[in-house]
Amino acid sequence: MSVLTGKHLIDGQWCAQSCESFSAYAPQMDEFISPQFHSAGAAEVNLAVQAAERGFEVIRQLSDHRRSELLTNIAQQLEYIRTPLVARCVRETGLPTGRVNGEIDRTKKQLLHFASLLMEGNWRRACSASSDVTSHPDLQLSSVPLGPVVVFSASNFPLAFSVAGGDTASALAAGCSVIVKAHPAHPGTSEMVADCILSALKHLDIPPCVFSLLQSKDHEAGVALVTNPAVKAAGFTGSIQGGRALFDIVSQRPEPIPFFGELGSTNPVFVFDSTFANGVDAFAQAFLSSMTQGAGQFCTSPGILVLQKSEHLDTLLTSLAAAIPSQAKQTMLTPHICSAYRRATKQRQSRSELNTLAVGRVAENAQSQAHIALFSVSAQDYLSNPELEHEVFGPSTLIVICQDFAEQLEVAKSLREHLASSVFSGPDTEDRQQIAQLVDALSLKVGRLVFNGFATGVEISPAMQHGGPYPSSTIAAITSVGSRAIERFMRPVCFQSMPVDYLPVVLTSATADQ
Amino acid sequence: MSVLTGKHLIDGQWCAQSCESFSAYAPQMDEFISPQFHSAGAAEVNLAVQAAERGFEVIRQLSDHRRSELLTNIAQQLEYIRTPLVARCVRETGLPTGRVNGEIDRTKKQLLHFASLLMEGNWRRACSASSDVTSHPDLQLSSVPLGPVVVFSASNFPLAFSVAGGDTASALAAGCSVIVKAHPAHPGTSEMVADCILSALKHLDIPPCVFSLLQSKDHEAGVALVTNPAVKAAGFTGSIQGGRALFDIVSQRPEPIPFFGELGSTNPVFVFDSTFANGVDAFAQAFLSSMTQGAGQFCTSPGILVLQKSEHLDTLLTSLAAAIPSQAKQTMLTPHICSAYRRATKQRQSRSELNTLAVGRVAENAQSQAHIALFSVSAQDYLSNPELEHEVFGPSTLIVICQDFAEQLEVAKSLREHLASSVFSGPDTEDRQQIAQLVDALSLKVGRLVFNGFATGVEISPAMQHGGPYPSSTIAAITSVGSRAIERFMRPVCFQSMPVDYLPVVLTSATADQ
Repeated sequence: MSVLTGKHLIDGQWCAQSCESFSAYAPQMDEFISPQFHSAGAAEVNLAVQAAERGFEVIRQLSDHRRSELLTNIAQQLEYIRTPLVARCVRETGLPTGRVNGEIDRTKKQLLHFASLLMEGNWRRACSASSDVTSHPDLQLSSVPLGPVVVFSASNFPLAFSVAGGDTASALAAGCSVIVKAHPAHPGTSEMVADCILSALKHLDIPPCVFSLLQSKDHEAGVALVTNPAVKAAGFTGSIQGGRALFDIVSQRPEPIPFFGELGSTNPVFVFDSTFANGVDAFAQAFLSSMTQGAGQFCTSPGILVLQKSEHLDTLLTSLAAAIPSQAKQTMLTPHICSAYRRATKQRQSRSELNTLAVGRVAENAQSQAHIALFSVSAQDYLSNPELEHEVFGPSTLIVICQDFAEQLEVAKSLREHLASSVFSGPDTEDRQQIAQLVDALSLKVGRLVFNGFATGVEISPAMQHGGPYPSSTIAAITSVGSRAIERFMRPVCFQSMPVDYLPVVLTSATADQ
Repeated sequence: MSVLTGKHLIDGQWCAQSCESFSAYAPQMDEFISPQFHSAGAAEVNLAVQAAERGFEVIRQLSDHRRSELLTNIAQQLEYIRTPLVARCVRETGLPTGRVNGEIDRTKKQLLHFASLLMEGNWRRACSASSDVTSHPDLQLSSVPLGPVVVFSASNFPLAFSVAGGDTASALAAGCSVIVKAHPAHPGTSEMVADCILSALKHLDIPPCVFSLLQSKDHEAGVALVTNPAVKAAGFTGSIQGGRALFDIVSQRPEPIPFFGELGSTNPVFVFDSTFANGVDAFAQAFLSSMTQGAGQFCTSPGILVLQKSEHLDTLLTSLAAAIPSQAKQTMLTPHICSAYRRATKQRQSRSELNTLAVGRVAENAQSQAHIALFSVSAQDYLSNPELEHEVFGPSTLIVICQDFAEQLEVAKSLREHLASSVFSGPDTEDRQQIAQLVDALSLKVGRLVFNGFATGVEISPAMQHGGPYPSSTIAAITSVGSRAIERFMRPVCFQSMPVDYLPVVLTSATADQ
């Protein structure tokens, strides 16, 4: 594809019916960029769902080997267009080139991770009880894909959590057809990646109804997709407000379906004073690097630091306040996100309970430029103002200053629920019992708990858990990163006394070619 | 306990505040029986939830060994009161003594199954990725219990899916405190079983706040329980109407929680003509036995039979019609269930598309006596009247007569979703390909697929799946029977680079005594 079409991809065709359109915005240049993108209406949604119904019958009957090939080939196609893809993505998102290149690497890694998983014979975690007790009937546990899946692209990971991101990769791996509702903040990037998927399907001679892409600037297409009876699951990464609205709509369907939403999280970091035994610099640097990663637009950004009063703390605060002005200025993903961030930090600056430690400077007329903002608050004021726990999406952190460990623990126990949390302490700490107590309290609040590290950066592993209690996720039992993400798009089926001849062939021959 | 108190069990005390009360009804005698039971109001709900919050802190910190002891002891306590328990349960439910004894056996088996599971070191299906790749951080996947759980007792399994049934056993095993909302159809049975749990807690010196029982004749207590912010999950077995109402309420909570509802299912049975190669008698007998089990009040009852036209079919229908009058008359659980059943079968008798093959006789004034009812319909009429797929709760089956296999397959593909389905065929069948096709189509519709057997009777096994797509379950990814039922009440937590000293002790020492 040399030129962007601005159209939807449905059943292998680039097409558009509705007259509504929109443009991508280049946040770094503060300008709209061509081409115009069509915004999907009811007609396109219906066509995409009809294609996905046919696509489900196709992909669910492909062998594991064939689906593995498909994922591998999509990763290859991404590599072929890396240069123009990075260029377009950088323009549309304002993210640095290095970050976008890294995200392509991660997207490929995710695709290849599921491609490998499919080649492991036991990936359906089949559990045969046939040998349990002789009086048992023969029971074979397997799993089947759910059906057509809708994936909502995220704004903050234009590749890794977007068109060919973790949701799409795991849904295709599970044997589901996919309709992606692209994020309007990076429509060109979305079209280019969708074209990679189309190329992979063509290359492997798989009918293209397996995958569709809809462009849309508003919420209607998304609502029409998740309320369509043929759609059997949805994956979403985004705001609490948007995710909850979709969750409510999905819950009210005559037949409710799983809605895997990853919404908001502040990822509190608890620091013991022993962390600073050799000075505050190493911690300060690691913290600044984590909080400013992606202009603070990571779902695992450290939005709250919880420390005890000490001399080290004073040094740390001075050091952080001094470092803020020299941080490179950062561009946020959209003017909308940036203005929401500015409103939130301005509001924090005006609160009497909060102490503004440092605020970076940006040009007032730069619509998408983010200023780093650091605030502090006493634990008591923090505890009596629960809204301070809410996520401020961007490079801002609130430092909660506790009188003692008891207050730190009280803050931990008061927390709402988060994706992740961290605990820092020094190597020769005398606080072992307190650390264990804190870890225990935090384990009830989060999906991942990191020791002496920040939560930004999420490994793709069988042991990863990226998902915590609501509102960090709508379904805490699942993960959206790592091998088990595939389980979201399947459900178990028990075959009782079923002769092997009659078992669906795709459930028995894990690595057989079709 | 020698005499029933008619009260609630909260934090180890039998207590009652509200003036509302109700009595149990003996369906076989058509009379109300003593004592009066108090109906829980807001005050009791709040007290029970407060106890469960304390109880959660207690039970989540008990070692696996202690929780295993608790489950084992509850099973023992049930055995101690078997004779009076059977007597009361038979009076309250109208179920035969043999069935109630069998249900006590099953309830004990479930408790002991989870007791054994807890003594297996790896039951949290921990997945350590520390050895994956050297560049990985060390990741340990474990799981934590969700918090206080509400269990709604079922009417149709007064023991196995009630106070100490599968939901309670798996929630306690997971480390959750439990509040049972007893079913008003068997309050005395519920009180006796709750007293067993209290005795076990006392015997093992575990604070009794871990378990509470609330009696209630209406919906208010249940609604108050599932909307309380401290409650973190609910288990429910019952009607589509009641379950959906609770699901909707739970979905609208500020913090939605998992609602594990097992609602309605008709469990269609597909029969190939080769099944009758040696005559119809064996099949007819097995079918009648399955459809009348528990007066047709099993969630896995075969409500639909799908067969092809043949001479054998004529013989089968004649044989079934002849057998119906000689079937023992059956008592349904409540007058309410029985009148709903009578309404539904009367309505079917009046429909012109349906042929009434046989209707058993009952005394008109016997309020809770069920008549067996068998209907047939052509596949075409069945397909154009989707409401014929709805569950008729009781001993009634609809026989769908197809012209050929194509029609049988069309019926299979038209199905809504069910807990289970069966396929029958003879040993030397020439229909192998058709059977495989049917099994494949049905695997997308059900949670369990049985070959040459009926779905009534659900093994307690790691490979069991008792749960299918909505409306058979509200969450199809889980099972309410078998080892994996415990996963409903836990969620995964990833510990990253966490020194083993700081891991919560209950997550590391699977079999250590406390």
